[in-house]
Amino acid sequence: MQDQPINIKKIGVLTSGGDAPGMNAAIRAVVRAGFYYNLEVYGIYRGYEGMINDDIRKLDSRSIAHVLERGGTFLKSARSLEFRTPEGRKKAYDNLKSHGIDALVVIGGDGSLTGAHLFYKEFGIPAVGLPGTIDNDLFGTDLTIGFDTACNTAIGAIDKIRDTATSHDRLFFVEVMGRDAGFIAINAGIGSAAAAILIPEKKFPVEKLIDRLKFREKAKKESNIVIVAEGGKSGGAQEISEKVKKILPTYDIKVTILGHLQRGGAPSSFDRILSSKLGVSAVEGLLKGKFDVMVGIINNKIVYTPIKRAIIDDKEVDDEDLRIAGILST
Amino acid sequence: MQDQPINIKKIGVLTSGGDAPGMNAAIRAVVRAGFYYNLEVYGIYRGYEGMINDDIRKLDSRSIAHVLERGGTFLKSARSLEFRTPEGRKKAYDNLKSHGIDALVVIGGDGSLTGAHLFYKEFGIPAVGLPGTIDNDLFGTDLTIGFDTACNTAIGAIDKIRDTATSHDRLFFVEVMGRDAGFIAINAGIGSAAAAILIPEKKFPVEKLIDRLKFREKAKKESNIVIVAEGGKSGGAQEISEKVKKILPTYDIKVTILGHLQRGGAPSSFDRILSSKLGVSAVEGLLKGKFDVMVGIINNKIVYTPIKRAIIDDKEVDDEDLRIAGILST
Amino acid sequence: MQDQPINIKKIGVLTSGGDAPGMNAAIRAVVRAGFYYNLEVYGIYRGYEGMINDDIRKLDSRSIAHVLERGGTFLKSARSLEFRTPEGRKKAYDNLKSHGIDALVVIGGDGSLTGAHLFYKEFGIPAVGLPGTIDNDLFGTDLTIGFDTACNTAIGAIDKIRDTATSHDRLFFVEVMGRDAGFIAINAGIGSAAAAILIPEKKFPVEKLIDRLKFREKAKKESNIVIVAEGGKSGGAQEISEKVKKILPTYDIKVTILGHLQRGGAPSSFDRILSSKLGVSAVEGLLKGKFDVMVGIINNKIVYTPIKRAIIDDKEVDDEDLRIAGILST
Amino acid sequence: MQDQPINIKKIGVLTSGGDAPGMNAAIRAVVRAGFYYNLEVYGIYRGYEGMINDDIRKLDSRSIAHVLERGGTFLKSARSLEFRTPEGRKKAYDNLKSHGIDALVVIGGDGSLTGAHLFYKEFGIPAVGLPGTIDNDLFGTDLTIGFDTACNTAIGAIDKIRDTATSHDRLFFVEVMGRDAGFIAINAGIGSAAAAILIPEKKFPVEKLIDRLKFREKAKKESNIVIVAEGGKSGGAQEISEKVKKILPTYDIKVTILGHLQRGGAPSSFDRILSSKLGVSAVEGLLKGKFDVMVGIINNKIVYTPIKRAIIDDKEVDDEDLRIAGILST
Repeated sequence: MQDQPINIKKIGVLTSGGDAPGMNAAIRAVVRAGFYYNLEVYGIYRGYEGMINDDIRKLDSRSIAHVLERGGTFLKSARSLEFRTPEGRKKAYDNLKSHGIDALVVIGGDGSLTGAHLFYKEFGIPAVGLPGTIDNDLFGTDLTIGFDTACNTAIGAIDKIRDTATSHDRLFFVEVMGRDAGFIAINAGIGSAAAAILIPEKKFPVEKLIDRLKFREKAKKESNIVIVAEGGKSGGAQEISEKVKKILPTYDIKVTILGHLQRGGAPSSFDRILSSKLGVSAVEGLLKGKFDVMVGIINNKIVYTPIKRAIIDDKEVDDEDLRIAGILST
Repeated sequence: MQDQPINIKKIGVLTSGGDAPGMNAAIRAVVRAGFYYNLEVYGIYRGYEGMINDDIRKLDSRSIAHVLERGGTFLKSARSLEFRTPEGRKKAYDNLKSHGIDALVVIGGDGSLTGAHLFYKEFGIPAVGLPGTIDNDLFGTDLTIGFDTACNTAIGAIDKIRDTATSHDRLFFVEVMGRDAGFIAINAGIGSAAAAILIPEKKFPVEKLIDRLKFREKAKKESNIVIVAEGGKSGGAQEISEKVKKILPTYDIKVTILGHLQRGGAPSSFDRILSSKLGVSAVEGLLKGKFDVMVGIINNKIVYTPIKRAIIDDKEVDDEDLRIAGILST
Repeated sequence: MQDQPINIKKIGVLTSGGDAPGMNAAIRAVVRAGFYYNLEVYGIYRGYEGMINDDIRKLDSRSIAHVLERGGTFLKSARSLEFRTPEGRKKAYDNLKSHGIDALVVIGGDGSLTGAHLFYKEFGIPAVGLPGTIDNDLFGTDLTIGFDTACNTAIGAIDKIRDTATSHDRLFFVEVMGRDAGFIAINAGIGSAAAAILIPEKKFPVEKLIDRLKFREKAKKESNIVIVAEGGKSGGAQEISEKVKKILPTYDIKVTILGHLQRGGAPSSFDRILSSKLGVSAVEGLLKGKFDVMVGIINNKIVYTPIKRAIIDDKEVDDEDLRIAGILST
Repeated sequence: MQDQPINIKKIGVLTSGGDAPGMNAAIRAVVRAGFYYNLEVYGIYRGYEGMINDDIRKLDSRSIAHVLERGGTFLKSARSLEFRTPEGRKKAYDNLKSHGIDALVVIGGDGSLTGAHLFYKEFGIPAVGLPGTIDNDLFGTDLTIGFDTACNTAIGAIDKIRDTATSHDRLFFVEVMGRDAGFIAINAGIGSAAAAILIPEKKFPVEKLIDRLKFREKAKKESNIVIVAEGGKSGGAQEISEKVKKILPTYDIKVTILGHLQRGGAPSSFDRILSSKLGVSAVEGLLKGKFDVMVGIINNKIVYTPIKRAIIDDKEVDDEDLRIAGILST
């Protein structure tokens, strides 16, 4: 990380990796802040793929009209294999130069930030990353763009599932997103009065789950919702439900996998504001000479973390959250 | 169907089969109409199971406070194997008699109405059925209770999925409910600008789907959503997606199965009003001597159809709807 | 109304008057159907104002991408004073001719259809009208575009208001849209278990309202919601609330005027399908020589009604709905 | 604030002041945590009013089933004039004693906490307060219960209003809640791309607003939304709109006052989790001897602040938020 302001006139902005609600709000904030500081802003379409294919267009005020409130990313996103090769990155660099782009704002997850870091090291293009992923699994920020919306979407869906679970005295296994991280599962679990929460980071043996369910049966709870993160150690919702079915054959058990609907939708109030702040701070960071960093919010303050650290260090789930979840589900 | 008014003092109301949003609004309307006509109303819990187990309680004004807007059914629902036996039905009859219940309102689908019909034939207990199922597959009513809400839920979820489909130029297969009937699929398909709609009632060969997708590719459509009813002739969404993947290996294909969340949620405006009207009309039907019938709305008019006909005759999807869908998706 | 097919090659489409959710879906259907029948379709922006100012652009497949699910109208709307003058209409006609536009599809309410009728009479430009207004006050269709969404929006808002009404044992007056027609009020009232519904079409003396409230107090109802259509005979929500306050000074009374949020939002499933069907049918009507008509749906069938009749005849609220509302609110 | 653990066996919980979404989730957490620590928990209905009238009932597991996801407060709330008198408080104390209640959890705003503080001073009843108010105007916590939901509700409503604002190129003044504090207005403003945000804490002269609107007109912005906090220094939305109308008579200006719908609705994911944590921490605080404090979350940590300080100190809006809002709206 350097802090030597350089002369920046044109910046490029891209979204990469899985899309997340709030990415559009972040792009808008980057563009607005760019204009505020008299920069030209270029949209790079389909992430690094568009950088390689020169799918790059100057953005104006109209480009960002009515995008704040929309899910997805109007710059589109894609995974680029070619950018992983030196030849691909060389092509991308040449395209940036031909447009005169001095610096980058990259919105995405782990892999997207890694790309920016590599690119900076090889070609010296200053870049600030924004944590854009519903999974919340990035070090260097309390919350990532899209996480709050994904939790609200999950909870809204589970509210509906609860209606039918209760009407039929059923046990529902609901699988939420989170391949390596249980953040969505924990929030969805606390927020939906779940009987249990199964996450990748912690073991939750089937026996313990059975005990919990039997305890709740005695306490006359009429329905049960168990939240399973897709990357859970005990298998996905389908697998774990089958194990339970064998041990509790009289239970009426159903499985719902929420899937990709968790990625979309109008961003929540929180995500709109987080994205807006981070977008402005990314541009201001560039102007202050903060390169090769990810901008995040920690304890309500803007913090710039070296990308290298953001992608290597793990953000861990809060044991206190799990303790609270335990107290609330018994 | 007879039309000889008899002296009814106490009615029982139950929900049976899969729950549907609007069932609570229907129960409320039955209770309110009952009070209006000076009847006592008894809630029979967990459908026919509760009739057999004497899980029957008198309802008052407080029982139905704040239920109109809630999904599911506060009387709960269950499938009863015992009610399919003559012994089970005898027990149920005895319980009704011990409470002095003269007549029944049964809210549910095909199977639930069949039960009411059988029960009427065997014991002469007057019953009016209400079409309560999200599938809309009942003859004798234009729309069933819960169908409109389920369509809105499906469309809301697909709106979110479209965000991510468009951001990634993806092909999404979205499976909606409808084991034997394509009503939800057709509405969700028209309502979400689907590339194709696959329903149980009509063949849609994979070749035709491939042609459609290629045509849209030429027309520069960047994303595709294909709606598949769970009981589709060509298999579920997972199966059909795998067939397409083999033929179009470069497509980025994802599958989402909406599942049980389609059953829950606060009922839509339409379902609240439909349920309210049918609930009142059920009670008024009983008082006018309309027994062994299902009450529905056809062309904006209340219509009483013999249950026997409602459960035997099929409601068919409207070819005109499919024609419109075809014009809109090309 | 004539039924003589003429040779139509280019059609213009516009939205006029107050916007309504589903207008975009209707425009999309007109464009798609146009393409299907090998027509060119021109978008006329800001209603008749754009016809006069030549704000007319050819629409293509991209113009209508991702509009189906959005509220408002991307063609925009405006009220045009100039179009009410012969000079204004002459200018508009000249612009249409300069683009070679043979026929029009006009989406809007009363005033918008009147304009189309006048224009047809004066210049012989064939036009089909679509009923686009949240108020549902057009003869010739069971339901207008946007009405179902507006009812759902109103009910969703009232569900939130009920939370606070119940928590505080309050009496809430909620004013919904409907200057001349009580359709939204009746649906919102039945759908939200209202204590009373005050509409422009019927008198509801304050004394009767007081009686109703006292009756409910005796019945231990803890909260009350009274729905008032903005054009109610007894005054708006504010006025009537003050009258009640004087008579029942101990009541904790609040007023909420829902206002313009009832006009916006993603269209409901029903409105998307209605709009889609009407849009296709408008184009097919033109091709079959149905001019100077409004296309609507009556008893689930497409019906073409002479515009003159649609704007002169009144659609009346259903007394049966009011009777049901009465039974449910006591 | 003392930290001397005493022997607590029975706790009472109440909600007071304006209701806020998440209050039910907080009550549930208090009850669940109480059971976890082998306490009896009593619900005190209608706030201090119920304490005086002995409207106090023991809560069990069933009392809190399916309340987490509901807006409002099932314990109900009321403002109590009698509790402001020594006689009233004496009555209240006697009632608590007669039930053997040792300690209190009070969920509410400023006034509610003041009551708890006074009561503790006079009768030594240990109490922990929870910040329950949509206004977010309490010192001692980053966010209050209900604030995030209220922001989401406001933003959802403004999203709808934007549809119609854009369709008609209108200027909308939207009034949100916040009599003394601009927190909702700032979030709603940033989250809805507002042209300007008027809050009680800062002057925003009409001239500046006019300049902003003219600047945006030049920049071809077609619609404008101005957010006004109800307690704004420049008057409410109606008043300020009239001033603007006089200066810009050609603008099409509308006003919407969101009103009480901002108080209700299912709590957001964030509010469910915040309420759950605070509810558990309140009980744990009591058991650790933390009395006469409000429990909040500051920088992601549970913090107990003396009630006296919480009610005297002001929470100030973040100037950085206003700076960001300024950059984004130009």
